[in-house]
Amino acid sequence: VFEHAPWVAQRVTAQRPFQTVASLDAAMMEALRGASDSEVRAFLNGHPELSGDNLPTDLTDASQAEQSALGMAGTSGAAELAGLNRAYRDRFGFPFIICVARHTAANVLRSLQHRLRGDPADELQTSLAEIGHITRLRLLQRVHGAGAPPSAGRLSGHVLDVASGRPAPDLRVDLLQEGRRAVQALTDADGRVSGLLPPGPLRQGQYELEFHAGAYFAARDVATFYDLIPVRFTISEAEAHYHIPLLLAPFGYSTYRGS
Amino acid sequence: VFEHAPWVAQRVTAQRPFQTVASLDAAMMEALRGASDSEVRAFLNGHPELSGDNLPTDLTDASQAEQSALGMAGTSGAAELAGLNRAYRDRFGFPFIICVARHTAANVLRSLQHRLRGDPADELQTSLAEIGHITRLRLLQRVHGAGAPPSAGRLSGHVLDVASGRPAPDLRVDLLQEGRRAVQALTDADGRVSGLLPPGPLRQGQYELEFHAGAYFAARDVATFYDLIPVRFTISEAEAHYHIPLLLAPFGYSTYRGS
Amino acid sequence: VFEHAPWVAQRVTAQRPFQTVASLDAAMMEALRGASDSEVRAFLNGHPELSGDNLPTDLTDASQAEQSALGMAGTSGAAELAGLNRAYRDRFGFPFIICVARHTAANVLRSLQHRLRGDPADELQTSLAEIGHITRLRLLQRVHGAGAPPSAGRLSGHVLDVASGRPAPDLRVDLLQEGRRAVQALTDADGRVSGLLPPGPLRQGQYELEFHAGAYFAARDVATFYDLIPVRFTISEAEAHYHIPLLLAPFGYSTYRGS
Amino acid sequence: VFEHAPWVAQRVTAQRPFQTVASLDAAMMEALRGASDSEVRAFLNGHPELSGDNLPTDLTDASQAEQSALGMAGTSGAAELAGLNRAYRDRFGFPFIICVARHTAANVLRSLQHRLRGDPADELQTSLAEIGHITRLRLLQRVHGAGAPPSAGRLSGHVLDVASGRPAPDLRVDLLQEGRRAVQALTDADGRVSGLLPPGPLRQGQYELEFHAGAYFAARDVATFYDLIPVRFTISEAEAHYHIPLLLAPFGYSTYRGS
Repeated sequence: VFEHAPWVAQRVTAQRPFQTVASLDAAMMEALRGASDSEVRAFLNGHPELSGDNLPTDLTDASQAEQSALGMAGTSGAAELAGLNRAYRDRFGFPFIICVARHTAANVLRSLQHRLRGDPADELQTSLAEIGHITRLRLLQRVHGAGAPPSAGRLSGHVLDVASGRPAPDLRVDLLQEGRRAVQALTDADGRVSGLLPPGPLRQGQYELEFHAGAYFAARDVATFYDLIPVRFTISEAEAHYHIPLLLAPFGYSTYRGS
Repeated sequence: VFEHAPWVAQRVTAQRPFQTVASLDAAMMEALRGASDSEVRAFLNGHPELSGDNLPTDLTDASQAEQSALGMAGTSGAAELAGLNRAYRDRFGFPFIICVARHTAANVLRSLQHRLRGDPADELQTSLAEIGHITRLRLLQRVHGAGAPPSAGRLSGHVLDVASGRPAPDLRVDLLQEGRRAVQALTDADGRVSGLLPPGPLRQGQYELEFHAGAYFAARDVATFYDLIPVRFTISEAEAHYHIPLLLAPFGYSTYRGS
Repeated sequence: VFEHAPWVAQRVTAQRPFQTVASLDAAMMEALRGASDSEVRAFLNGHPELSGDNLPTDLTDASQAEQSALGMAGTSGAAELAGLNRAYRDRFGFPFIICVARHTAANVLRSLQHRLRGDPADELQTSLAEIGHITRLRLLQRVHGAGAPPSAGRLSGHVLDVASGRPAPDLRVDLLQEGRRAVQALTDADGRVSGLLPPGPLRQGQYELEFHAGAYFAARDVATFYDLIPVRFTISEAEAHYHIPLLLAPFGYSTYRGS
Repeated sequence: VFEHAPWVAQRVTAQRPFQTVASLDAAMMEALRGASDSEVRAFLNGHPELSGDNLPTDLTDASQAEQSALGMAGTSGAAELAGLNRAYRDRFGFPFIICVARHTAANVLRSLQHRLRGDPADELQTSLAEIGHITRLRLLQRVHGAGAPPSAGRLSGHVLDVASGRPAPDLRVDLLQEGRRAVQALTDADGRVSGLLPPGPLRQGQYELEFHAGAYFAARDVATFYDLIPVRFTISEAEAHYHIPLLLAPFGYSTYRGS
C-alpha cells in the first residue's frame, strides 16, 4: 500500500484493530507525516516515475495496474512526460507523484505542468496529499475488491422535454473524455442516464456529453434546430456527484450543474 | 361509502375477502355500473347538492367533512353555486357530483360551468367516474386513517443557484392556491422544498410558488433584478407528482415541469 | 425651474448662450452648488413638502403637475406621508426632496424611509442630486414639450417560442406597476412589445409583466403547464433600457434581463 | 448566367427594360420553364458534373468560381462524388445540379444522396429550382459585384451574462463549419458577434459556435463549470437570419434560435 515502505504499516500495528478502512489509512498517513524529513524524502524517492509509453518492469503490482488504467500510452502526452518528469525531479528532489486514478491522462499532464511552477514546501505537502489518495484507494481495493468504494464520485444526466412536459426516454447520450468517445447510453423511461463511468473516484479532466436530439425529435416527427447537443464540462472533484440536466425544446435548451 | 346506498356493498359481500382497498372499490363500482338505469339515477339523486355558504344539516358525515374542507364558504363562488346547481339538475336530471377533495373551490366552479355544457350521456359517465374517486378516498380514509393514502399526488420544488453551482438553501418559498397564500417554507440544504400540501390527492386548480430571491441574494451581498419570483401553474392531475425546479441567477432564471 | 429661486438663473446669464439643455442645467447646478451654505439651505426650505392626499394650493405649476402624476392620492402610503415628512424635517432641517417623476408612489415612500436613516451630510448631497434630476426634467419639458426627452428610460419585452423556433406574435402582455395593472399590449409579428410606459424617465419601483401563455398555446391547440407567466422585477435606473425576453415552451420557460 | 444557353436571355429581350434583378431573373426562369421538354433536358445536360478533386478545364468561369469556393477538393467526400454523380445521371438522365453557393461541401453530398432516392418528376422540378438559385446569384454578382446581395442570409450571436445582468464583452467565439474551424471573433461591447460569414446566401449544413466561457470567467476571477461551450446547429435556409443567443452563468446556460 505504501510503496516500498513496510515501516509505515509497522509503526501502526500497536493501534490494531482498526474499525474502518478510513481510520487505518488515517493512522498510517499520520505515521508517515510524523516521520523524519529524510525518511519522508526517501519514501517519496522510492516511487517510480510516471511512465508514458513503456512501463518499467520493476513496478509494484499496484503501480502497474494504476498506470495501465490511465491509458496514456500512445497519446501525444506520453512523449512530453519524460522531459517534464526530469524537470520536476531536478527542481524538487523527488519524483512527481499523483494519484493517477483520480485524473485523466491529459489532466495528469496539466497537473504536472502546473505543479512544476509550485513552491517546494507546498509541493511536498501536495505530494503527501496525493500519497493519501493513492493509499486510501489501494486499501479500499484490498478490502472491498471490485465493489464500489464508499463515497466515490458519480456522473449522471437527465433529459426533460419541455415541449411535452415529460422526461425524454430512449435518447442516445455519448460521453467523451478528453475528446475521446468513451461510452454511449440511452436515457431510461424517466429520461435519466447513469453508470456512465466505472465505480470509484472520477478522473478529473474535460468531459463532454453529446445528446442526440435530432434522432429523438425525428422519431416524433418534430422539426428541430439541433442534431447533436454537446455539453462540455470540467470535473475537478473526483469524489463529487456531477449531475447534468438538459431541458430540451426543439429550438432551445438549457443545461446546468444539477444536484 | 356509497351515499345512502347500502345495496352496493351488499351486492359484493359474496366476493369477500378483498385483498386490497382497490379491489374492494373496483368490485363495488362494478356492482354500481351493473345496476339498472333507474337504480343508478336514483343513487345519483341520493347525493346532496354541493353547498356554498350554509351546509345542510342532513349531510352524511363524509359529505360534511369533504365539503367543509373545500373551503368555498365565504368565497365569491359560493353565491353563484345555487343557480348553477339548479341549471345542472334541470338539464341532466340529477345533481352535480364531483369529488371535491381533488379540486380547489375555484376549480369546482370551473368544472361545474364546463360540465353544464356537456352531453347528457357523457355526463352520466363523468358522474360515475367522480363517484369512483369519492368512494376510493372514503375507503382509503376508513382503512388507513390519517396516513397518506398510497399513490397520492405530490408537489415539490428545487432551487439551484447557477451562479455558484450549488443548491440554494434557506430560500423562502410561498405557495398560493387560487391566489390565496396557503403555506410558506424554506428550502433545505439541498435546495428542496416538499410537504407543501397535505398528503392525499392534490386539489386541481391554479397554484403559484413565490421564490424569495431578493432576500436570498441580499444575504450573500449579490445584486439582483428580482425580489420575488412567482411561478404560476395548473395542477390538472390530482394523483401526479408536480416538481417545480428554479434555475436561479441574479439576472435570469429558468423553470420547467420537472420529474 | 429652480423652485422659488430666480437667483440661480440670474447667476448664469453671463454665460449665455448655452448650446444644449444639458449645459444650461449643468451651469445652473454649478451656481447652486457654489452658493453659500445658508443660501442652499434656504433654497431647499423653499420647496413644498410632498403631499399625499390634498395638494396645497400654493404649489408652483411644475410641482403641482409632478405630484399629481405620481398618483399617491388615495393610496395606503398617503396617510403615512405626513408623519414621515415631519420626522425628516426634524432630523435634517429641510423638507424631503425627491424627483417624483423618476419613482413610483410606493418607491417615493421606500426612499423616504431609507433616507430618514441617512447621514445629514450625505443627505444634503442626495437632495442636491435630486434637485438636479428635477430641474433637468423641467428644462427638457420647457424646451422639448411633450416630445420624448433624449436619453430617457425604456421598457420592452420579447417572446420567443422555443418549441416552434419563431417569435410568438399576438400574445397578450400586461404590465403591472407596484401591483396595479397599468397597461396591456399584444406582441407584434416579431414577438415584441414596447411603448409600455410613457416617454421620459422610468419610475423606479416594482414591476411585473404578465405573459398570457395559456391563451397563446390554446389558440394553437397545444397543452401547457402555464396559464399566465408573471415576471416581477425591480427598475432601479430611471434612464436605462429594461428588456425582458421570455423563452417560452409549453412546459418550461426562461427569462433574463436582456440588452 | 444560364449555362451554355444564350437562348434563354434572347427570349426575354423584348421585355426590356427590367426594373430589378429579380424581375429579369423571373422572366428568364419563366422562359426556361416555358421551353419544350427536350429543350429543358438539353439545357440541364449542358451543365458540368460537380467535381471533387480536379475541376474540368472546360467549365464556364462562373461554374469554375462556384465549385472552387465550395472547397470540396481534398475532403473525404470528393472521392465518393464520381460514383454518386454517375448513379444520379443513370437514374434521371441529366447531371446532378445544385446551387453550390447555398451549401457546404458536406451538405452537397447529403443532398445528392437524398435526391438520388427522389421521384424523377419531382427531381426535374428540384433541378429547375436549383437553376433559379444559381442564376439569381450570378445575376446579382454581375450587377452588384462584391457588395452584399439584397436579402442574403445572416448569422449572429449574442452573449448575456445573467450573473452580472450585462452583455459579455470580449468573449471569444469560434465558428466551425462541418466540424472545421472557419473563423474566430470577439463579442463587442454589447456582447454581440456578427459578420462571421461572408455576405450572400448562407451555406446550408452543420455549424458550431464555440463560446470561450472559461477565459471570460477566469479574467473576472469567477469559478465556472465550463471551459468552452459548443452550440451545434443546422442551417437549412440559405437566406434566413440565424441568431444564436447564449445566456451564460458560471454553472448553467441556455441557448435558443433567436430572431
